[in-house]
Amino acid sequence: MVIIPKNHPRVKSLLVRERLVKGFDEGIVAKEGLLAHGRGEAFDYLLGEKTSKKAKNAICASAALLTLAKRPVISVNGNSAALCPKETVDLSKVLKAKIEVNLFYANEKRKQNIIRFLKKNGAKQVLGGNKSSQKILSNLTSARRVVDKGGIFAGDVILVPLEDGDRTLALKKMRKKVITFDLNPLSRTAQTADITIVDNVIRGMKELNKTCKKFSKKNRNELQSIVRKFDNKKNLASSILAIKNYLNRRARHA
Amino acid sequence: MVIIPKNHPRVKSLLVRERLVKGFDEGIVAKEGLLAHGRGEAFDYLLGEKTSKKAKNAICASAALLTLAKRPVISVNGNSAALCPKETVDLSKVLKAKIEVNLFYANEKRKQNIIRFLKKNGAKQVLGGNKSSQKILSNLTSARRVVDKGGIFAGDVILVPLEDGDRTLALKKMRKKVITFDLNPLSRTAQTADITIVDNVIRGMKELNKTCKKFSKKNRNELQSIVRKFDNKKNLASSILAIKNYLNRRARHA
Repeated sequence: MVIIPKNHPRVKSLLVRERLVKGFDEGIVAKEGLLAHGRGEAFDYLLGEKTSKKAKNAICASAALLTLAKRPVISVNGNSAALCPKETVDLSKVLKAKIEVNLFYANEKRKQNIIRFLKKNGAKQVLGGNKSSQKILSNLTSARRVVDKGGIFAGDVILVPLEDGDRTLALKKMRKKVITFDLNPLSRTAQTADITIVDNVIRGMKELNKTCKKFSKKNRNELQSIVRKFDNKKNLASSILAIKNYLNRRARHA
Repeated sequence: MVIIPKNHPRVKSLLVRERLVKGFDEGIVAKEGLLAHGRGEAFDYLLGEKTSKKAKNAICASAALLTLAKRPVISVNGNSAALCPKETVDLSKVLKAKIEVNLFYANEKRKQNIIRFLKKNGAKQVLGGNKSSQKILSNLTSARRVVDKGGIFAGDVILVPLEDGDRTLALKKMRKKVITFDLNPLSRTAQTADITIVDNVIRGMKELNKTCKKFSKKNRNELQSIVRKFDNKKNLASSILAIKNYLNRRARHA
């Protein structure tokens, strides 16, 4: 266990990193997940490490779409499980959404570890581990092509935090609405999803939970209007601009 | 072993990543090294994943400085060993430079693994593993304070790929010329080194090798003129600008 000084200028980021390293030691996070997190750290750094106004817009639209959904599903991978297990379970309860584990780097043992970990964090049911209810998406080649008949396969709105581009596209081709968390506003995932929340998944999931709770009282017309007014491409362009502004500020002080 | 689809749009980056993961499995790369690589990937992505003109400028200046050096040393850590062992060994032969292993996260076993790995890749001698020739740099606190008397301690030009800011500063205070590879042009290392090559270490080391071979035929006056003309601060500012331009281009097509 590494001791992180409380007064370290990057203490928050370091503590999150430890959460992930712990997840790795417990067989939840893949090696590739550590790498992916590093990429996220870099983009979060370039976004000033806070939930931007643009991210809040995307969270509002996501909360509306998820609340309107008939069969919402939260797709979980190693990193999102390790980083925000409680937020994932809470959200599934607020939305009455299914949780399904779906891994890019296939590993039956890790899948079972994640399912156990989510259950320890309060999940009643976690799909993805039952071979008899599997469906294969023919338009995908990675391990992620395996989905659950009663989960992602049947879902209408799928929340996929920390997703890869191929799968986002495959889900879109199946006419599903896809919501993703991606700190890189330029990534294929970010550009392909219906709604992209450019935010750290821990901060963003907390905010999404809060908003979904609030929206459960709104009527369908109001929610539909929020979804209609949201423009993902425009919102992403603003996030790219935010990075540029950060670079301008930093370049001036370099 | 993970199978990466050959038609995956990010196959190059994924294969490099696998090289690092393999290094991790073989006890060469630290967990923190995986995270650090991820951060590098993000910056590389923002630089368009190619060796820029500014990086080539920095590589030219580095090749000139290294060719002029009396006692050049290549410092190696887990990530640089795993990513470009052959390029490191080749460069040491072209320059008649020493190779020394120096780790931020101290671990005697990992050090020995790296030394063995470099020897397997053709290195005749690798410093850093011999306790009897160690020297302690009093102005550093991390494990990196330990250097070899005949290597970094005595060197005049030190190439430190993937360095941390503290050590770059410590080497500078010892009046050494420091050349680094750093994909983040804003980092303390990037800002402190004499020459910062803002490039992926695999691509950059190949290019550096080629340039050093070419420069071995140049006379000292020519080489000195190349070094004199190079301005690291200006070059770094151009790299920051390059990220901004990349964002602009991408934002237009998004």
